[in-house]
Amino acid sequence: MNTRRIVVTFVALLAAAAVLPLVSLRAPIAADDPLPSWNETASKQAIMDFVAKVTKEGSSDFVKPAERIAVFDNDGTLWCEQPLYFQGFFCIDRVKALARQHPEWKDTEPFKSAIAGDLKGVGAAGAKGLHDMLAATHAGMTTDEFNTIVKDWLKTARHPKYNRPYTECIYQPMLEVLAYLRASGFKTFIVSGGGLDFMRAFAEEVYGIPPEQIIGTSGKTQLEMRDGAPVIVKLPELSSLDDKEGKPLNIELHIGRRPVMCFGNSDGDLQMLQWTTIPRGSADHSPRFGLIVRHTDVEREYAYDRDSHVGKLDKALDEAEQRGWTVVSMKDDWKTIFPASTAQASANSAPLQSHSITGTVAYRVRIAPPPHAVVHIKLEDVSQADAPATVIAEKRIATDGRQVPIPFTLEYDPAKIIANHRYNVRASIVSGDKTLFTTAQQYPVLTVGGPGGDRDLRIIVEQSGDGAPGR
Amino acid sequence: MNTRRIVVTFVALLAAAAVLPLVSLRAPIAADDPLPSWNETASKQAIMDFVAKVTKEGSSDFVKPAERIAVFDNDGTLWCEQPLYFQGFFCIDRVKALARQHPEWKDTEPFKSAIAGDLKGVGAAGAKGLHDMLAATHAGMTTDEFNTIVKDWLKTARHPKYNRPYTECIYQPMLEVLAYLRASGFKTFIVSGGGLDFMRAFAEEVYGIPPEQIIGTSGKTQLEMRDGAPVIVKLPELSSLDDKEGKPLNIELHIGRRPVMCFGNSDGDLQMLQWTTIPRGSADHSPRFGLIVRHTDVEREYAYDRDSHVGKLDKALDEAEQRGWTVVSMKDDWKTIFPASTAQASANSAPLQSHSITGTVAYRVRIAPPPHAVVHIKLEDVSQADAPATVIAEKRIATDGRQVPIPFTLEYDPAKIIANHRYNVRASIVSGDKTLFTTAQQYPVLTVGGPGGDRDLRIIVEQSGDGAPGR
Repeated sequence: MNTRRIVVTFVALLAAAAVLPLVSLRAPIAADDPLPSWNETASKQAIMDFVAKVTKEGSSDFVKPAERIAVFDNDGTLWCEQPLYFQGFFCIDRVKALARQHPEWKDTEPFKSAIAGDLKGVGAAGAKGLHDMLAATHAGMTTDEFNTIVKDWLKTARHPKYNRPYTECIYQPMLEVLAYLRASGFKTFIVSGGGLDFMRAFAEEVYGIPPEQIIGTSGKTQLEMRDGAPVIVKLPELSSLDDKEGKPLNIELHIGRRPVMCFGNSDGDLQMLQWTTIPRGSADHSPRFGLIVRHTDVEREYAYDRDSHVGKLDKALDEAEQRGWTVVSMKDDWKTIFPASTAQASANSAPLQSHSITGTVAYRVRIAPPPHAVVHIKLEDVSQADAPATVIAEKRIATDGRQVPIPFTLEYDPAKIIANHRYNVRASIVSGDKTLFTTAQQYPVLTVGGPGGDRDLRIIVEQSGDGAPGR
Repeated sequence: MNTRRIVVTFVALLAAAAVLPLVSLRAPIAADDPLPSWNETASKQAIMDFVAKVTKEGSSDFVKPAERIAVFDNDGTLWCEQPLYFQGFFCIDRVKALARQHPEWKDTEPFKSAIAGDLKGVGAAGAKGLHDMLAATHAGMTTDEFNTIVKDWLKTARHPKYNRPYTECIYQPMLEVLAYLRASGFKTFIVSGGGLDFMRAFAEEVYGIPPEQIIGTSGKTQLEMRDGAPVIVKLPELSSLDDKEGKPLNIELHIGRRPVMCFGNSDGDLQMLQWTTIPRGSADHSPRFGLIVRHTDVEREYAYDRDSHVGKLDKALDEAEQRGWTVVSMKDDWKTIFPASTAQASANSAPLQSHSITGTVAYRVRIAPPPHAVVHIKLEDVSQADAPATVIAEKRIATDGRQVPIPFTLEYDPAKIIANHRYNVRASIVSGDKTLFTTAQQYPVLTVGGPGGDRDLRIIVEQSGDGAPGR
């Protein structure tokens, strides 16, 4: 790994100089890192070592870009699943919303319990009750209508513990893994027991995963003509349960290639971890990677495994060592759990929530930057139209042979931010004295540009006049 | 369209000079064309006009790259389907191959007829008979085993009329459409009634469509552990029939986005043509394109529509005008039907089969070349290691704002080709006197490099020292 080599060199230099304490050299390194929210533990190293070896041309472990398939469970792997699968909360909220149209629900379980917010009562109705509730809330409408219902719900619903939108109860370290893998030529897929249509309502925006790369539990559907136009109606019968053995079967149906990397968190992911990683005979030395997110952080999130009713992790944990799967401890391996809250940031726009701006810099090309290219990021005060912009903060990040998007974290001094000023982020990629790429559009942050504009900024740089070919 | 503008300019220039006949200016224009195997008819114009308008940034018809989904039927749309679906021939050949292990088939229909090569007898066994034959030939093995079986069959089986591999009974004009759409930012999917696993055995190599973009008829499957490793076993029960209304339902299941373009040839494609193109209410003005390949060429291929037992085209033809679908007449719209035969080319390596080399030039970047960039292609004799290469043929193609891959046809004089010499194709992309990209690896053709090396050459150019950033 280039990054490691740089760390080693850096440490050696500093040891020779013997002036700076170790902690001060950690910060700049972490910021150039594709996985800044991960602590420097074996889990992070395992991910980075694996990606490095499969993307290194000429190495025996090299995997062609077309075959770089990574699959991710969703509930408990990409976002939180406690105290109940979020789709369960959606289901209960839908029952409440539809209760007026269904007076009979007052006396029918599990609807009665759902309306009362009694999760135990809902659970007591068993599989049949769950099926009835899913049928009542997930079927009978068109796929387009359902998509709108879910999107509307996500706008207002809040997680009971964190009091933030469910789409913000996603794991920042895993967002970084998704971006890092895509930047390394991987196609990222969701393979989840969650509802296919439910996930499609947010996954593209939240995870950057397009609908054609989402695999989930699905119901039967029916084509109808309504007002002269075709619609697809969701029926109450289950078509495919994307859990346990259903996962490899659906991977085969939808992808048709054995994944190279697999990320899960529960026994529902056991079969796809096996499918991904177990060698096919003694001649199969193809590189494969399995990872389990273990919920060990009772303070910042939840701690559960073998005895949990949601996301039970038992057999897969037993197999992890034998199979060589990386077991992530959220408590020990993750610096942060969730991204900075955009809701809170908008509620109190000043003082600012975080003192850094995060995001990625990319260009629309599929080549790696030249070996010595450097990403140069600036936060500028652009309030005065007739004066040059004032640089509030800047940073240079060595690309180190990494592909775009290159993640960045740009720290700034909040004392320099004035509420009625305007701030832009500018980025360029330079090699020597040549500017290869630079931002052509504006990236307003902090005071303008909406809440959350200071995190997960996706900066596109365009080829500059210095370089060629231009756009 | 830039191309059209150039044609107009060109015509005006020549009219002023009044020296050259019109025919001599057609040739170079056609060669710069993404669809060189299409005649200059309304069908071709409709495809090119549509692609131009949806890829033009700022236009009201602009479609974001992520939403550029094009779906293609396979049988009768991308390859031939007469005198029987090719998978039917596979099925019959498999019955013959397995007959020894099944002595009971001698007296059981439709196996008895299949072994005797009696297609009518097979047909007489009806749906139940067909199911039995499919179950006997498509189930009971693992997906990997089935993939190998199909690949092995494709190596030796020959089409009864053309006496060439089935994978060469593909439509050259449609290969060009696939390449043109992908070069225009489309994701191309197959949505076919054919077997999913059957198509995956060749579609990536033959059409450039990866397995995760293939949707087809599929059977149930089962996960098993064999010798400590998981396998997926194909079961004899049908899971999804990807025909008629099954097509839009599977598009929703696998893609989750309404396609922008849809290509079919039979009533089996009616529902996906409707799903793609019918506006969703009076406010829906989103650009959509439907196309039907009509088999009108009794000499070069087959002529059939309303009364055919294979690829029946009746209702969809009736609806085409009302819906604005382009109906392609293979006889009138297609210059050539199939690609040059690689089998024949290898059988008699000299004299050469065709007098042109075709392919595409691309780089691994996702930006358009600069407006005035020109692709420069050369065919060189590189037999003498110690002397500069001799240029046998060369051509310059204006990129005209098109994205890579840029298709090319490089004509050469076969009299200049010497059997024991070696020939390479070199390509570069230049802008003014700057070489932006150039070939870094060798592309041997004609006498070396294997049969078929003179067609569908996929040249990758690398960023040159002049440009930046390099690799």
